[in-house]
Amino acid sequence: MTAGARAALPVKISATGGYIPSLKVDSTELDGRFGFQAGFVERATGIRTRYYGNETETAPYMGARAVADALRRGDISMKEIDALISVAGTQAQLVPCTASLILEELGELDSGIAAFDINATCLGFIVGFDVAAHLIAAGRYRRVLLVAAETCSVMLSPTEWESASIVGDGAAAVVLDRAEGGEASCVGWSMMATYPRGARLCETRALGTTLHPNSPRKPTPEDYHFHMDGLSLVRLTSDLATGFRDRFMSEAGQSLSDFDLIVPHQASGPAVRLMMKRLECPKQKVFLYLRDFGNVASASIPFGIHLALEGSRLKRGDRVLLVGTGAGVSLGALSLVY
Amino acid sequence: MTAGARAALPVKISATGGYIPSLKVDSTELDGRFGFQAGFVERATGIRTRYYGNETETAPYMGARAVADALRRGDISMKEIDALISVAGTQAQLVPCTASLILEELGELDSGIAAFDINATCLGFIVGFDVAAHLIAAGRYRRVLLVAAETCSVMLSPTEWESASIVGDGAAAVVLDRAEGGEASCVGWSMMATYPRGARLCETRALGTTLHPNSPRKPTPEDYHFHMDGLSLVRLTSDLATGFRDRFMSEAGQSLSDFDLIVPHQASGPAVRLMMKRLECPKQKVFLYLRDFGNVASASIPFGIHLALEGSRLKRGDRVLLVGTGAGVSLGALSLVY
Repeated sequence: MTAGARAALPVKISATGGYIPSLKVDSTELDGRFGFQAGFVERATGIRTRYYGNETETAPYMGARAVADALRRGDISMKEIDALISVAGTQAQLVPCTASLILEELGELDSGIAAFDINATCLGFIVGFDVAAHLIAAGRYRRVLLVAAETCSVMLSPTEWESASIVGDGAAAVVLDRAEGGEASCVGWSMMATYPRGARLCETRALGTTLHPNSPRKPTPEDYHFHMDGLSLVRLTSDLATGFRDRFMSEAGQSLSDFDLIVPHQASGPAVRLMMKRLECPKQKVFLYLRDFGNVASASIPFGIHLALEGSRLKRGDRVLLVGTGAGVSLGALSLVY
Repeated sequence: MTAGARAALPVKISATGGYIPSLKVDSTELDGRFGFQAGFVERATGIRTRYYGNETETAPYMGARAVADALRRGDISMKEIDALISVAGTQAQLVPCTASLILEELGELDSGIAAFDINATCLGFIVGFDVAAHLIAAGRYRRVLLVAAETCSVMLSPTEWESASIVGDGAAAVVLDRAEGGEASCVGWSMMATYPRGARLCETRALGTTLHPNSPRKPTPEDYHFHMDGLSLVRLTSDLATGFRDRFMSEAGQSLSDFDLIVPHQASGPAVRLMMKRLECPKQKVFLYLRDFGNVASASIPFGIHLALEGSRLKRGDRVLLVGTGAGVSLGALSLVY
């Protein structure tokens, strides 16, 4: 990393993959559903298209397809993987963890590798990347698969256009390896900061132990939907952004000008643009793709890396900042050399 | 660690805490509920008593109480904590992650620390401990709170006595710190091995995105219950136990005779006794407490450490092996010097 940076972890991204489900939903369709004039949803969200999973495209299925895509592109076999970490913000079922279900879907029934989930809502990839980098750098694992598979469309409210307009389904997978001597690739600093003052601004209250159908605290139909107070969320995260940036850059020993590419969580057009402005990220360095896929939650950042590579926006040696916000409310960032 | 052991991570447990909810359920009560002769459930499970959360004792509530207990015992303030990791195998609600809800319950609304979940079902504490130890050893965080809060009683089947007889609710919290020069405390080796061949032997199929009430794949009432095929589970994990032990000890550079105390996941009386036999763990070194609290899922191992300390079964410098099985199906272990 640049001068002044903390000791970096010798870890590199060796392959990426993605999976986009089959049901294409244009914003004009949502205009009709919510009774808006044609063009409103796209203007309000910056999103033209998103995709939803069909009946067979479950999260484990999509996760397995993204993994298979990454392995194929990297010419890597599952036998060379030591751990599979699911970093989705929504789980497939309450028990067991999603990672084991993805492994099952891959047909790796007698795998014997480590398989567990990290959930930091939309920041799961940032936290998972940091955790995996530490485990690889210290020699616990040689090669780790991170996979984010989100099928949040099932929990969208039929009446809350604001959240229903931004969410898309999708999956992305990233293979992490030890960077050998001579390779510039590394992970620099990473930070996550949670402010539960915003915990209720973005939530799905049911689908856990608190509001369980068998408990005295029975969920209402609304509790099964995803709810978001977008304006309050943007206000809160904007207020926190400058302090977060300063703390991150100070701890990392870096400055924003050190980065060649910034891959933000693609929350929504207005939200991500405001966040980039507050963080003072130069527009031309920011990789935006939400217009074509919407907000795919925890898959947003790894799918962004995948698309940036596909589109030749990212090459070996580039200094990259991953940054985003998540329910909780949390801010997170990670710096790396690709 | 002992000769031959891998480089150990300079990390120590500096405080533990626990919380047991208010509704005491004796096995005789379950005998009556399932139509057994008095004494059957206790004989079959090795469990005399377990506790269930009442209407207000949610997982975040119980987690916050366990955290408060650990901080009080360790004379530590929340201001001195850099990250809170929830390691529960069941989440409180779908979004956001449970760690942020525990932070909210603690009143830490403007906390700004990292808060995320690690889910490895009943092995979450082992994986979370290993992850936190790496993050602390590398200087990412100075002090980390691990908290496991489980209220699995809400999902028990009214007809499946086998699973309903073993589960109890409970929470435990552990504070991890950097061990300074001169302190023997460290984390040695850790391993998790997942075999999805057993993924369907122990599951709660609903309460996620796959069987969502809004999806075409609607859950049935049974899908909301926890289901376990205990006999198949014990057979599979027993078959895997010897290979797991040999691989762990070889990678760790340790042998079973190196340990002063073994804290197993308290799955059920017969299951844990068979597992200890297969692993060849000397009986007198194994810490069992499930008779009084049942299987509290991911809280089982950290609550065991807490009780072992309370009962003076564990002291500074002791070499400890944490070991267990989890849904997935997974086996996991971690060696440490307390």
